[in-house]
This record gives sequence, C-alpha cells and structure tokens, in this order.
Amino acid sequence: MKAILIIADGLGGRPTDQGGETCLEAARTPHLDELAARGALGLVDPIAPGVRPGSDTAHLSLLGYDPHVIYTGRGVFECLGIGMDVKRGDICFRANFATVTPNEGKFIVKDRRAGRISSGQEELAKTLNSISLEKSLAVEFEFRPSTQHRGALLLRGDGLSRYVTENDPHKIDAEALDFKPMDGHDDEGTCRTAAALNELVTRSYEILHDHPVNRERERAGEKPANYILARGASDLPHLDPIAAVYGVSGAVIAGGALYRGIALACGMEVRDAPGATGGLDTDLRSKAKTALAALETFDYVFIHVKGTDNAGHDQDAAGKTAFIERIDAELIAPLMKGVDWKETHLAITGDHTTPIDYGDHTAEPVPILYVGPNVRSDSTSVFGEREAGRGGLGRWSGKVLPILLNYNNRAPKFGS
Amino acid sequence: MKAILIIADGLGGRPTDQGGETCLEAARTPHLDELAARGALGLVDPIAPGVRPGSDTAHLSLLGYDPHVIYTGRGVFECLGIGMDVKRGDICFRANFATVTPNEGKFIVKDRRAGRISSGQEELAKTLNSISLEKSLAVEFEFRPSTQHRGALLLRGDGLSRYVTENDPHKIDAEALDFKPMDGHDDEGTCRTAAALNELVTRSYEILHDHPVNRERERAGEKPANYILARGASDLPHLDPIAAVYGVSGAVIAGGALYRGIALACGMEVRDAPGATGGLDTDLRSKAKTALAALETFDYVFIHVKGTDNAGHDQDAAGKTAFIERIDAELIAPLMKGVDWKETHLAITGDHTTPIDYGDHTAEPVPILYVGPNVRSDSTSVFGEREAGRGGLGRWSGKVLPILLNYNNRAPKFGS
Repeated sequence: MKAILIIADGLGGRPTDQGGETCLEAARTPHLDELAARGALGLVDPIAPGVRPGSDTAHLSLLGYDPHVIYTGRGVFECLGIGMDVKRGDICFRANFATVTPNEGKFIVKDRRAGRISSGQEELAKTLNSISLEKSLAVEFEFRPSTQHRGALLLRGDGLSRYVTENDPHKIDAEALDFKPMDGHDDEGTCRTAAALNELVTRSYEILHDHPVNRERERAGEKPANYILARGASDLPHLDPIAAVYGVSGAVIAGGALYRGIALACGMEVRDAPGATGGLDTDLRSKAKTALAALETFDYVFIHVKGTDNAGHDQDAAGKTAFIERIDAELIAPLMKGVDWKETHLAITGDHTTPIDYGDHTAEPVPILYVGPNVRSDSTSVFGEREAGRGGLGRWSGKVLPILLNYNNRAPKFGS
Repeated sequence: MKAILIIADGLGGRPTDQGGETCLEAARTPHLDELAARGALGLVDPIAPGVRPGSDTAHLSLLGYDPHVIYTGRGVFECLGIGMDVKRGDICFRANFATVTPNEGKFIVKDRRAGRISSGQEELAKTLNSISLEKSLAVEFEFRPSTQHRGALLLRGDGLSRYVTENDPHKIDAEALDFKPMDGHDDEGTCRTAAALNELVTRSYEILHDHPVNRERERAGEKPANYILARGASDLPHLDPIAAVYGVSGAVIAGGALYRGIALACGMEVRDAPGATGGLDTDLRSKAKTALAALETFDYVFIHVKGTDNAGHDQDAAGKTAFIERIDAELIAPLMKGVDWKETHLAITGDHTTPIDYGDHTAEPVPILYVGPNVRSDSTSVFGEREAGRGGLGRWSGKVLPILLNYNNRAPKFGS
C-alpha cells in the first residue's frame, strides 16, 4: 500500500479571517470536500493543546517525534535542507548576509538582510569560506547561501557545543552581539565554539567589506553584504529514522529548505519538483506529478506546501483563500485522479494556524482529513475547521504520519 | 457502588471487515445499543494515537498504567496467569514444548509447537523440573505447562537479569538460538542468566527425548515434545496495586492466562467461570453469572473475552460478528438484568483493533461505552465505531478503569 501526507503550512485559521469564516472555510474546495465525504475528519494539535508551534517543532511532532525530547534547534534542518553534509557533532546555524558599519571594534547592524541581496552570494561565500580560523580553536566551518540573503553555517571540530547565544540583535542600528556560552555552559567546548564564531564574524567583515561584489553593490547604491548573522545553533537530533521504525521508504517534495531538511533528518529522500518555490507562486501541478512518480518507488510521499503560511504572515486573506483553492484544483485533483484508491491512504493537515489578523503562528488545533480503504468514514462532507470539530476522528496531538502508516499496516507493535 | 469493566479483545474493526461495516457495526447488538442510548460513547486509543498495541501493553494502559514506564515483557504475566508464585527478582518467560533434532551440538527446530501436544505435558514438566542446574550458576527454575504445547518458565536466583535474548528462531528447520545477553548488558548477572537458560534447554533435550511420553508419541506417529523454547523475558513490574490507589477490591474473570496474570499483577483476585476457555467456544453466560456473584463481595469486576480477537486473527468476519452477537445476548443481557443500575457503572471497550483483512492488531482507536447513574448520556444509540466517533465522550488515551472508578467516586485526588 502507498501513503500520501500533505502538510499545508499555516493552514488553520480563525473566524476573523474572512467575514466570519476561516480562509479554508471560505475557499471553494470541491475535491477536498469529496475526500472529506469519503474519509474522516478530526482536529489535531500539532504538538499539544495550547502549545504554539514553530514550523520545525510542529513538523517533527506530526511526523511522529516528540520535539520536547529531540529538538535541538532549527539550524541543523537549514543546513541539511540546502544540501550540506551534517555529521554528528557538527554545530549548525541559520545564517545570513547583513550590512554593518564598524565602530570601535564592534559592528553596528544597518540592514539585517543586506538589502535582500539577490546576486553574487556564491562569490561572497567562496571568499568567506577561504578564512582559516585560529589554529588553536581546531574549528572548520562552511557557510552556504540559499535564497537572497539567507544561508546556513556549519562548524566542525571535536567537542563543539550548541549552547551558544546568537549575534543577531534583531534591531537596526544596534551593535551586533558577541556569541557567548549560554548560562550554565561555561565548559571549554562551548567557550571555544563561541570564540570561533566571534572570530569568524569579525573576519567576515574584514574579508567581505572590500570584496568586488560589495564594491559593485555600493557603486549601484545597494547595501554591501559585509557581515554574517547566525542563530538557531543546533546539532543533529537523536531520532530513529522512519524507515527503521516502520519499514517504509519515503520521499519529500518541498520547496522550502527547512522542510526538506526535517524530512532528511527523518530519513526521507528529496524529490525535486520543477517550479516548486516554497512560495505562493509554486507549481502545484508539478508537485502532484512528482509525487505520483515518487509513489512508483517509495512507500509514502510527504508533500509540503508553504503558500498558505506565507499569505497568513502577510495578513493576506484573499491570497490565502486563493492559494487553498489552488491546492484543491492543482494538487488534490491530479492526485485524486492519479492514485489507486484501493491501495492508497492520504492525510492532509496543517502544521499550525496562521490567522490573518495576527500574522503569526497560533496554537489552535488544525483540521485533519484521512481517506483510504481502511479509514472508517464519518458524516462530514466539507474540509474545514468547524466541520473537523464534528469529525469522527475526534482530537489528538501530533503523530499524523504514524497514524497514516498504521492504516497501511506498517505500525510496529509495542508489547505482544 | 459497583463497577463492571468488560474488555473484548481485538473488538475494533475496519470498514473492510463486513461489506463497508466493521464486524461490530454489522452485528445485531440490541442490549449494547440500549446501553449506548442510556450512556455515552467515545473513542479510546488503547495506549496512544498511532501506537499499535500488544494485548499486554494495551491492558496495562486501559487499567490505568503507563506501559512505556512499567512494562518489562509478557512472560511475567504468563507465569502469574497460570498460578506461579512470582517474587521480585524472578525472571519469567513464555515457554513451550517444541520438537527438535540434535545436530553437532546444536538443535534443529522441526516443530515450534511439538505437534500441539495435548496430553502428557504434566509428566514431561515433572521430569524437566527434576533437572538441577550447575551449582555455580545458583539458579533454580520451574517450567509449568498450561494449554497444549504452551507454558511458562520462571528462573530464580540472586542478581538474575531479564536482558537476555530468546532461543526461538521463529522458523522451522532452523537452529535453536543461544540465549545471549542483549547489547549493552554484559554484566555478570545477565551472563549467568543466559548460561542457565542455555544449560536448561540443552538438558531439556537430554532428559525429554527418551521420556516415556515421547516414546509413546513417536510410536503413535506424533512429534516428540523434546525441547523448550522460551521468550518474553521479564520480571515483576513496579506498579501500585489498584486497591492501594483507589481503595477498591477487584476480581478478574478471564479464560486467557495472560489476562489473569495482568490482573493479578495489578492486585485483582481471580474468579473462575466454569466453561471460560479464552476462545470462541467460551461460556459467556457462565462469565456473567460469575461476575454477578463476584460483585456481591468485590467493588468491581473485570471481565475479559478473547473470542473477538481470535476471530480477527483468523480473518473470520462471520465468526467475529457472531461472537459479538453472543457477547450481547449471553454476557451483556444477563448483566443488564442482574445488576442494580442505580448503584453500578459499566464500561465496555476493546484493547485494540484486529481487522479481518489484516488479521493482526492495528492502532486505530476503539469504541468505548460508559453507562450508569453518574454518566452524562449523549445522543448515541448504537454501540459501534462510527457512532462512537460522534459520542459525547470524545477521544482520549488509556485510563479506562480509573475513569470507571471515578464514576463510583473512587478516584484519588491529586492536589488539594
């Protein structure tokens, strides 16, 4: 049997979204509604009731893990997601180019995103990566750019520690902070990690501020990418790969690096869908096509779509509603046509609520739909938050993929 | 007040069981339906959402314990269930007679069940138990037969350990395995436990292969019971007895040794119902009668019925449906007549789903019914999976007995 898991990021909404309805309730979704009629709905708390999820922790929980136990931070997923080879003990960060001016040995942050730089990042990174840190630190590093100013940073060396603070002041015209050991972590490895990071960002200014790419940017009136901000220190989480626990092979189709990185950490393989951007402009038909192709070789496929969350953060109700309608027409419809429903179970849900009024994640439970031959159907016939509250599956926390794989008779037995 | 807990093993089903209905939905159950109309339904995840339960772990969870914390393995419940006196530190196994042929110091398993031997087991066991293990091991043991080839094995000695592998290869014509310390458990006690087990099974062949019972079996063309296979190493779980927590006395009525053993471990007393077999042929009216008698002296009674699970494992939809109809007519009906409903609460549920198509346990939540004077009734009027999804009790995990005893005002207060 085959399984499809679809997570629409930030899918959940509030009645304030669209004249008393959530965006999902306001959207015309005939295909999702047909699946609701054939399957069953419920409400899932992505992590636990009242816990407001990050995207990373929510995904870990929906995939079957306890983020309170295994989560070490976001950086490691960013590194994995953009293709870096993360080994146990490596310390990973979300990192990005920024614009600073030096001031008495410190750096004043003038733009946290270096004017959203859109070209030359590879050349800057190559120069940056040519730095050799002080030998006694015994630390190697790699910075890898992803989109615009964004990238990831990886430190490698014996005994390094993720218990370091960040250097991003999260304010303009503020001093970049020193990396420091977190309270209670003044051991040699943590101090050395912080020292390596401090040396790295100081030297990033020295080597980047006069770089040809930046000289060109300044000539064009653009802000130079002359500094590195890093946050989300983390290392590889200790988790049992999904394949080892359930005996199934899985592929991820996601535009966003974070989601690819989480899926890689759980042991999935990445399948690239041409035109998948991780944004509202993503090619959903391409994702459906890639998923159907992946299902020929993999036991399950995890499809992530990000546009719902982007529109929520942008407080764009019409955009979120329209994107949900596109999910219905361009992702769900082709999947419905393409799979063998006698042999396939599908689940669709969100990783959290991103209400329009608030523009950020909130903790309400999100609607979830399961459909397939082993699912006991209920009396619901519309895919939406309130209908899900009447669904036959009730309400629970996380574990969406384990429950999906159980329908495929792939859950390991606990006890005998 | 009195309480009755009925667990129908493997009660839950899937829509593929019986032409779109589960066996429970397809069964005619007028008495259960009347209780549903008077009481309230919900869905219970025996252990947790997405966790596929064993019967032992599920029962511990439904009785109020966290099997992730207290479960040590199945053997201890088998030993308790067939009446062995298990003390703290004893190492217990599910064990059974098998047929082997010797081969260069090893044993090739020809039949894992010794031709399902049905007589002479007591004599074989008596001979087996006459073995004295090598003095330096300081280990005593007892093997006790139960039904057919089945039995239980108990080791006693200072410092023994349950962290040993099993000798059952789970295949025919394969070598019986050596007992070994599990990875990470190479301490003296574990090594000595494994050595005692290896000596015991080797000597079981020496002492049994030419035993009069086996000579007679071979003359009759039957396979000799000339070896012992043991698995499920475990010791007494650390748990607070139900009586200590809730201040109530309880009795168990169950045909299967495992269920009697679990109930004993939780502090219940066994009441034997004549004709209770742990199978589809069990005498349910006798169980009802025994339960009603037990309720005269005990605060609650736990009735276990196994036939639902047996039919599920045998992929026998008609058999499962018919057995559920028998539960309704021969167990529920007499209980309904026999108890004082002003003073009694009753709960009925399953310990897991055993769908016909799959023939083994799966992780879906199971329907649960509570009825009695303190239960807030809902609008349901049929006892079935889908109706339970509309029930007023919602969905939760485990703790079925604590909730039942709470209706009897017997739950301890946490905090003040």
